[in-house]
Amino acid sequence: MSTSTATLYATLANEIAAQIGAGTLKVGERLPSLRELRDRRGVSLSTVSEAFRLLEDRGLIEARPQSGFFVRTVRETPPVSRPKPTPAAVTVNKRLWDYLQLTHGLRHGFCYAVMAPECFPNNQLHKLMNEALKSKPTLLSEYGGTRGLEGLRRQVARHAMEWGGQFTADDVQITAGGIEALNLALRATTQPGDVVAVESPTYFGLLQLFEAMGLKALEIPTDPMHGISLPALELASRDGAVAACVLMPNFSNPTGSLMSDDNKQALVKLLAERQIPLIEDDIYGEFYQGRERPRPAKAFDETGNVLYVASFTKLVAPGMRVGWIAPGRYRERVQILKYINTFSTPAVTQATLARFLESGGYDQHMRRLRRMCADQLAQLSDGLARYFPAGTRWTQPQGGYLCWVALPAGADATRLLQSAVAEDISFAPGPLFSARHSYRNYLRLCSGEPWTPTVDARLRRLGELAQQQLGML
Amino acid sequence: MSTSTATLYATLANEIAAQIGAGTLKVGERLPSLRELRDRRGVSLSTVSEAFRLLEDRGLIEARPQSGFFVRTVRETPPVSRPKPTPAAVTVNKRLWDYLQLTHGLRHGFCYAVMAPECFPNNQLHKLMNEALKSKPTLLSEYGGTRGLEGLRRQVARHAMEWGGQFTADDVQITAGGIEALNLALRATTQPGDVVAVESPTYFGLLQLFEAMGLKALEIPTDPMHGISLPALELASRDGAVAACVLMPNFSNPTGSLMSDDNKQALVKLLAERQIPLIEDDIYGEFYQGRERPRPAKAFDETGNVLYVASFTKLVAPGMRVGWIAPGRYRERVQILKYINTFSTPAVTQATLARFLESGGYDQHMRRLRRMCADQLAQLSDGLARYFPAGTRWTQPQGGYLCWVALPAGADATRLLQSAVAEDISFAPGPLFSARHSYRNYLRLCSGEPWTPTVDARLRRLGELAQQQLGML
Repeated sequence: MSTSTATLYATLANEIAAQIGAGTLKVGERLPSLRELRDRRGVSLSTVSEAFRLLEDRGLIEARPQSGFFVRTVRETPPVSRPKPTPAAVTVNKRLWDYLQLTHGLRHGFCYAVMAPECFPNNQLHKLMNEALKSKPTLLSEYGGTRGLEGLRRQVARHAMEWGGQFTADDVQITAGGIEALNLALRATTQPGDVVAVESPTYFGLLQLFEAMGLKALEIPTDPMHGISLPALELASRDGAVAACVLMPNFSNPTGSLMSDDNKQALVKLLAERQIPLIEDDIYGEFYQGRERPRPAKAFDETGNVLYVASFTKLVAPGMRVGWIAPGRYRERVQILKYINTFSTPAVTQATLARFLESGGYDQHMRRLRRMCADQLAQLSDGLARYFPAGTRWTQPQGGYLCWVALPAGADATRLLQSAVAEDISFAPGPLFSARHSYRNYLRLCSGEPWTPTVDARLRRLGELAQQQLGML
Repeated sequence: MSTSTATLYATLANEIAAQIGAGTLKVGERLPSLRELRDRRGVSLSTVSEAFRLLEDRGLIEARPQSGFFVRTVRETPPVSRPKPTPAAVTVNKRLWDYLQLTHGLRHGFCYAVMAPECFPNNQLHKLMNEALKSKPTLLSEYGGTRGLEGLRRQVARHAMEWGGQFTADDVQITAGGIEALNLALRATTQPGDVVAVESPTYFGLLQLFEAMGLKALEIPTDPMHGISLPALELASRDGAVAACVLMPNFSNPTGSLMSDDNKQALVKLLAERQIPLIEDDIYGEFYQGRERPRPAKAFDETGNVLYVASFTKLVAPGMRVGWIAPGRYRERVQILKYINTFSTPAVTQATLARFLESGGYDQHMRRLRRMCADQLAQLSDGLARYFPAGTRWTQPQGGYLCWVALPAGADATRLLQSAVAEDISFAPGPLFSARHSYRNYLRLCSGEPWTPTVDARLRRLGELAQQQLGML
């Protein structure tokens, strides 16, 4: 690149930066395309492209797959969490029950951690299910093996190779969704009264499981962008008091945090040395925005110490209730536990999914779903910048469709939910995500629906309600 | 009826009894029809009919629905069980695991407690599933409610009215088969370390659940024909040490025993007074041979103390994995536990079953299935009389398709299974059905397959192997 070109692209970048700074280009607004700018300014395509790269590096704009470049605001993310360093008995049931009763039947809002029904390949699955039933009429009348349909387990193992999973069909156990897999994993590795280390905040369903099983939660400081603090986990698990560890290294629920590969590797090593089983929940791992799927911790597992949990629920068909687990050295125990928990998973849904994976339909569908997901999350983030009270911070996940939002101190998410529900808007309030009901001013928002003016208006209204509560309106 | 007619039918009955005694009419042989005998003997139809009733009362012949009358042998049933009167920690996992490994992949035999795949309405269900998917394309992509599809819950409640069930759809929780329902019921009513009263022998899956949940089994003396001993249960539960009770009053697994209505009523009263929840497993209740479905204990429940468990697994479609529970006053707890165990049950299978029930297809199918079931059980019983060692005793259930067989003392069912499996024959050995591995010389045989010469030959061979073991061959 010649000096003159270098000057050109820097000049162009500075001009655009100035427009952003002056508000001529607004947060979330789409920039002209590379070609448009080339023609308008009479520069080369590579000059425009370099200018955009510079602006990206400065954090001023961001690329969205298939959509172009957009103005990004300089956004502060919520701080690293500082939970109490002692285990806590969990009592979330009552709160969760109230939450479920309150939000029951609200079809819309930012509450459900799942994409909208129209995002899934319904007709394709219907067709494949039909074919499966035709080719094996006794699919409905045979129990099917406890481990799951071999055809599906083989496809699952094949797909896991893409991120370095070294499985055979024998290493995979099919389950009734990811939640059953978590159940089996916890029962295989813990006893009532045991202490289990988790991210803080963490998924409320997991906490509820702890409560039902009499487990204590040890919440570990966690960076809402980069995941659990390894030094904190190292310290907390030193005395042998931690029986197991349940983490979501890829796009965790609720923060959307992503651990680096180095940290994943160090995590797996630490826990293997201390013989603390790691239950890895990777149900959002496939929703990456970058070019490559982030590797799960399981990819670094050499001893079978990682029980890897995944599911087709969020990916293909929530109503099918098909998940899976690669339980490593806990394989036999997990199989026995599946036998007595639900015995087997319906064969007809498994056969349908096996065909979907084998035919390539799955890969195609996921490419589309990932794009939607990235777009919706970006829209949500832009909306937060536009509509939410000054001082609000939120995460900028690199995948998934969840966003963890910290309102300014003084806000009360549980009260906010009550006023929101009255207007048919919902979200998950922060205290659900902690054994000690912390995160009083936090919200988990899901961007599972295609972004429409109605969705946008709903987010705006939620922002207004938050401002009202804080006396800003 | 005139004296002359009375004499006539008694004479006829005695003649037939003599033929049976002399072996002219053999065990399991079909008697001539009413009309044939009328024509042959020149007596009235009612005379023949009365003669048959007399023979039935004497236990010499038995009616089989749609098939006529058959010679019955005077068979001794196994004695009332005498388990130790103290609770036992359960350790069946290892044995059961060995059993499952040993019998894995054996498609034939007397091992699986389920009817053969061809007995189920496969094509009809396929068609209904198709219709359900057409009428609601998002059936696969919506989670569906945790409680289950309202349409199915309504049908379930409607059908339960037939035996006096006083439910609304709201009282029903859909589950992933009967086994999940048992899980939820146990978790809703017990804590690890609790003592739970059961029949002896009882279903091994239940014992395995106890083991996984850290529950102790208190085995109560049980009549293999008439169910649990109420005086024994009364005594054992006096000191408040029993936390819950799990029973199968209708056609229990493995004995096929049936409690009388009076006993069911007394049972429900006793447990309600003592505030001991009753978990009633009624998954075989629909397989009655008589005119009327036996009422479950739940029919006598006035306080909500009975958690009633049922399933479509054995009835309509094992591969669908749809069961249900009417948890009485534990409704809310069971719903929370379902939420964290598998979240929801696939909607597509539920919608299919709802259509099957609503269309009347279910009733028609069950009439057919009950006939098959009764016939197969009778054939099994006849075969036992023909082929098994002298001194063998077995139950004569009035429903279901399970038979509990006591070989003469000295026999070892676990060893017998090993030699049987080598010849592709399987069954469940007695020690699986007790926390203390009692019932060494017992077998549970299932007559789930249509009776063919091959099945008959397999039973004969099993009888020979038993005789060999006892040194009789």
